[in-house]
Amino acid sequence: MGKLLIVGTVAFDEIETPFGKTDRILGGAATFIGLAASQFDVDSAIVSIVGEDMDQEHLDLLASKGIDLSGLEIVKGGKTFYWKGKYHNDLNSRDTLVTELNTLADFNPIVPNNFKDADVVMLGNLHPSVQMSVIDQMEKRPKLIILDTMNFWMDNALPELTDVIKHIDVITINDEEARQLTGEYSLVKAAEKIQTMGPKFVVIKKGEHGALLFHEDNVFFAPALPLEEVFDPTGAGDTFAGGFAGYVAATGNTSFNGLKNAVIHGSNLASFSVERFGTERMENLERHEVNKRLHQFKTLTQFDIELK
Amino acid sequence: MGKLLIVGTVAFDEIETPFGKTDRILGGAATFIGLAASQFDVDSAIVSIVGEDMDQEHLDLLASKGIDLSGLEIVKGGKTFYWKGKYHNDLNSRDTLVTELNTLADFNPIVPNNFKDADVVMLGNLHPSVQMSVIDQMEKRPKLIILDTMNFWMDNALPELTDVIKHIDVITINDEEARQLTGEYSLVKAAEKIQTMGPKFVVIKKGEHGALLFHEDNVFFAPALPLEEVFDPTGAGDTFAGGFAGYVAATGNTSFNGLKNAVIHGSNLASFSVERFGTERMENLERHEVNKRLHQFKTLTQFDIELK
Repeated sequence: MGKLLIVGTVAFDEIETPFGKTDRILGGAATFIGLAASQFDVDSAIVSIVGEDMDQEHLDLLASKGIDLSGLEIVKGGKTFYWKGKYHNDLNSRDTLVTELNTLADFNPIVPNNFKDADVVMLGNLHPSVQMSVIDQMEKRPKLIILDTMNFWMDNALPELTDVIKHIDVITINDEEARQLTGEYSLVKAAEKIQTMGPKFVVIKKGEHGALLFHEDNVFFAPALPLEEVFDPTGAGDTFAGGFAGYVAATGNTSFNGLKNAVIHGSNLASFSVERFGTERMENLERHEVNKRLHQFKTLTQFDIELK
Repeated sequence: MGKLLIVGTVAFDEIETPFGKTDRILGGAATFIGLAASQFDVDSAIVSIVGEDMDQEHLDLLASKGIDLSGLEIVKGGKTFYWKGKYHNDLNSRDTLVTELNTLADFNPIVPNNFKDADVVMLGNLHPSVQMSVIDQMEKRPKLIILDTMNFWMDNALPELTDVIKHIDVITINDEEARQLTGEYSLVKAAEKIQTMGPKFVVIKKGEHGALLFHEDNVFFAPALPLEEVFDPTGAGDTFAGGFAGYVAATGNTSFNGLKNAVIHGSNLASFSVERFGTERMENLERHEVNKRLHQFKTLTQFDIELK
């Protein structure tokens, strides 16, 4: 059982999709990552910050999944990071209606002593300087440091982003962001270029079109499971990352083959996350459901052609 | 060695992409289908129509691939179907600059007697009434009838399209067209609905995002091979269809497993087609190159997770 350190937001989301809308519900990258990773035999901790308005029942939920919350700072009188968004009809694009950073504006992550030797560090999408400060606190080099980021930091903190990605092993990024970061339209070329910037592994997320894993001359592709209904894509990318990181932490396998399996597990868990609003589907997801869907993933992609 | 009957356009294309432009070059659905199918041990024929302006060297090229051209009508004094288009920078969309139907406007396909017992019929994108007249000429029910179509016929000949698809086994269609035909956004639901309209198999082409094969409760997915450069997407869908149809004709295997392999072979050949303008890459494509890339397809998608 490996140790997984998760750094990212624990937040309130308010979501509208073509299928309905929510009040303020539990959200945030670290939340989705933690719930997904809890499907594996890992010893995990979340480092994050919330306000006094965060409901105890949400924190109890995370704790009930075996997630160490000693690195979760609760700011007296503070308010939790809040995001409100509305998805368009195709669910592939969305408008952000409100973003309130609140306590997140002053987030200064403190890694708990008992996780300074974590095997895997999963850095959720945050300011790259915040991500860097976590790496600096580690007492030994983790087996795998995974970093998620987005175009906002390329626009607003590119030097800091360029710096932190020198120190990581895996970057997860979407196709448009990979193009923006490298100026290459071809994802093959973009992934090659990113590997020269630091990470040995590049995961390019394409949403409903699946995910690609690049490493040296190797490429692996995992589709998204075709679903009858996608209800709410919020958190799908973080659930993918949590499944990916959780699998690696549980197995300790950081080879290309190990990370291939991690991509499949991440895609598999993300396919559940989108079936309900927010974290609803992930809160009570059972191991037998996960295993059943892994079989579907296998039949979806495996073929048997005699090669010459 | 099975018999494959191919019905579709033999045409002139004039293409502009971000990487350059061509004069009038050989194009047309039947051309790409025939070239792709010639990678397999099939006895194939093209039924089509051209004008007197069609170059003999182009016809010689097709004949050199073992394609029977006795069903190719050459109209004296007539002009060949001509399409001119320009691709946008991302190569995912294009503008049609000129379409001249010419002889295609009066196309009345006559199936040669020696192909009225073809094992596989591949109906390229044409007016659905023209596609239907080919089915009507067959002397025995082919093992597999595959039909390609597009949104233009949904807009302009929906009753005829609805009629012909009652008589076919496999429809190939892109994602947007599947949605338009059924009114369902979810591709899973769209494919279910299309199966109630006639075809037992539904192939949904997603271009650079791969292709899905649906049959009853089964789904199979083949990615497009991630390429360093895509040069010219013209004919990629027809090359896919030609590889699909050619494989089925060569093996006679119309089971779901057989069609899974057909999808892989089609995707594999399409990955070559887009590397050069028009038919250039397909004209001299060698078996060892095809086999090598099949290995890449396998490593791209195959994984080994122990399932419980």
